[in-house]
Amino acid sequence: MVKKFKIAVIAGDGIGPEVIGEGVKVLNKVAECSGDFCFDFTYFPWGCEYYLKHGKMMDDDGIEQLKAFDAIYLGAVGYPGVPDHVSLWDLLLKIRKEFDQYVNIRPIKLLQGAPCPLKDVRKEEIDMLFIRENSEGEYAGAGDWLFKGKPEEVVLQTGVFSRKGTERIIRYAFETARKMGKSLTSISKGNALNYSMVFWDQIFDEISQEYPDVETRSYLVDAASMFMVKQPERFQVVVSSNLFGDILTDLGAAIAGGIGLAAGANINPERTYPSMFEPIHGSAPDIAGQGIANPLAAIWSASQMLEFLGYEALADTVIQAIEKILQEKEVLTPDMNGTSSTSEVGDRIVEILSSML
Amino acid sequence: MVKKFKIAVIAGDGIGPEVIGEGVKVLNKVAECSGDFCFDFTYFPWGCEYYLKHGKMMDDDGIEQLKAFDAIYLGAVGYPGVPDHVSLWDLLLKIRKEFDQYVNIRPIKLLQGAPCPLKDVRKEEIDMLFIRENSEGEYAGAGDWLFKGKPEEVVLQTGVFSRKGTERIIRYAFETARKMGKSLTSISKGNALNYSMVFWDQIFDEISQEYPDVETRSYLVDAASMFMVKQPERFQVVVSSNLFGDILTDLGAAIAGGIGLAAGANINPERTYPSMFEPIHGSAPDIAGQGIANPLAAIWSASQMLEFLGYEALADTVIQAIEKILQEKEVLTPDMNGTSSTSEVGDRIVEILSSML
Ligand SMILES: CC(C)[C@H](C(=O)O)[C@@H](O)C(=O)O
Ligand SMILES: CC(C)[C@H](C(=O)O)[C@@H](O)C(=O)O
Repeated sequence: MVKKFKIAVIAGDGIGPEVIGEGVKVLNKVAECSGDFCFDFTYFPWGCEYYLKHGKMMDDDGIEQLKAFDAIYLGAVGYPGVPDHVSLWDLLLKIRKEFDQYVNIRPIKLLQGAPCPLKDVRKEEIDMLFIRENSEGEYAGAGDWLFKGKPEEVVLQTGVFSRKGTERIIRYAFETARKMGKSLTSISKGNALNYSMVFWDQIFDEISQEYPDVETRSYLVDAASMFMVKQPERFQVVVSSNLFGDILTDLGAAIAGGIGLAAGANINPERTYPSMFEPIHGSAPDIAGQGIANPLAAIWSASQMLEFLGYEALADTVIQAIEKILQEKEVLTPDMNGTSSTSEVGDRIVEILSSML
Repeated sequence: MVKKFKIAVIAGDGIGPEVIGEGVKVLNKVAECSGDFCFDFTYFPWGCEYYLKHGKMMDDDGIEQLKAFDAIYLGAVGYPGVPDHVSLWDLLLKIRKEFDQYVNIRPIKLLQGAPCPLKDVRKEEIDMLFIRENSEGEYAGAGDWLFKGKPEEVVLQTGVFSRKGTERIIRYAFETARKMGKSLTSISKGNALNYSMVFWDQIFDEISQEYPDVETRSYLVDAASMFMVKQPERFQVVVSSNLFGDILTDLGAAIAGGIGLAAGANINPERTYPSMFEPIHGSAPDIAGQGIANPLAAIWSASQMLEFLGYEALADTVIQAIEKILQEKEVLTPDMNGTSSTSEVGDRIVEILSSML
């Protein structure tokens, strides 16, 4: 019996469709080689172009339509002409929230052959797994805009940290650290954010009691940003709020090969709703349409999808194929100092996989 | 007529007194060499030790007492045994707010001879001036803690961005960029923080109309953290909210020689209240009392004080002395791979200054 996975593809804007095309190639290849399963991809034309035509980022019943799928594969969202807070809140952030994808998993791992801007760093020293809260916190969207245009105008942005939301992400992180036999670092700012981060620290403390076997650390977000650059080996599994995870994982991408390699999984652990896999780069309007975007981040996120669907060994093989192409240094896009096109990189990964599987 | 400046010294906790002692040496030397002015230092024993004895971080009328001074020179605040959100809110953050020190100026400049963790970076490429909002925003201290201990517990942290507060910091940054003939970069997160940062972007736009001669850029905070590491030459003058400035200036410290070199000035531009000068490092309990703390950040902040008091050329000379000691590589503390003590570094700076002034 060949298992069939129904995947919703939202290639999105800018370079989104270009990189997702290569990820789809890779997923099909892996499925074909395995022989045990296959993918059924359904394409949704949602994004900023859709918005400019239809006045909305996705269909009104878009969330309903997506429910039927095993996973969502997303390219990039956002394009000049549509304000970011519209394009993102009505598509990317909407899906994260509606599908309760409260865990955002971002590997920050320096592969052999990947460029690193840091001196004196051995590749084993950059090997972290960021677990970012993905449903509330600073991204709750709560706030107020008072006395608009008047001298006394004041704008409020409220971070919302619920016990449920904070407990579940921290517990997920402890489970992950325990499973991997690694330490867990919490990112805080309790010295300045006198409600939210004091609460965060308290919950982290409470839950750590249940995991006496997991070594824990806690860094202030400012200190953490320094350590990421000076002593990245301090970090193994890391848990953070939504905003802090956003900032530190981009910094992480910078030290671990660049944004062209950075993947993220938006997970609903209960599997009540589909999870979503995406490269964490944006739509890169400046290079869109030229066929030179780096598809490796999209391919890495395809590997995260494989892992989520239960094919851990195959997921690993895809990472190994990425490492191989980086070491060969022959077929790479311009951001990696190569001269190849997006699809040449995808094709080479497929070739490497054929030889490995 | 020799001008006398009254300086309040709050050496504070941990390594604070050690590094401030060297800064005082340097200030006295500079004054002596100039012959035009002198310093009258008054020491306040406030901090965590004081708290453990008296149950408060400073005297009840502490703010009143400080008003009489021309400037405040602060070491570091915070020590194990006193929760950070107590020690900081009742001393460091209290002074920043009560004295309306709404501008936090942090130079991020790689001096010749300073260690840099980045590959392939020339020193001219790291030369930024961060202007951080220092009185409100994410640090407003506003929030709520509801249903404590219940399953429905929820904690709110509210960032407060007033038109007045946002305009004045952005205007200050434009004035600075204009005076220096440099570009101005705004740090935002308008795509996710749908009230505060949309407002921030709007004010930045509005005020930029008044400064058509200043080149402007705007980066999302996550992208900015990446660029700081990959292309630091993008940044010249930078303006940011309180929290974003906190995070990015620590990252900046990491790429520009380390936290042992990072200085910050908390400025009340109207000079209604005293301004405050501090190294941005913490109290470093792990090395306190050993005489090995790096005093260069405290000395750099003394240079900021000189500049603020009107002695720009002397301030520059102090920076040159720091650059000289770094290039000599003979008298440095262990964090800079040296073997010298805190006071040996201070003494050597004084010697260098004697030869320069
Ligand atoms: C596009 C943006 C809203 C998003 C975020 O801030 O979460 C992105 O930066 C990310 O990290 O996935
Ligand atoms: C000590 C802490 C409250 C402070 C801050 O967050 O502002 C510090 O990190 C700084 O940058 O001056």
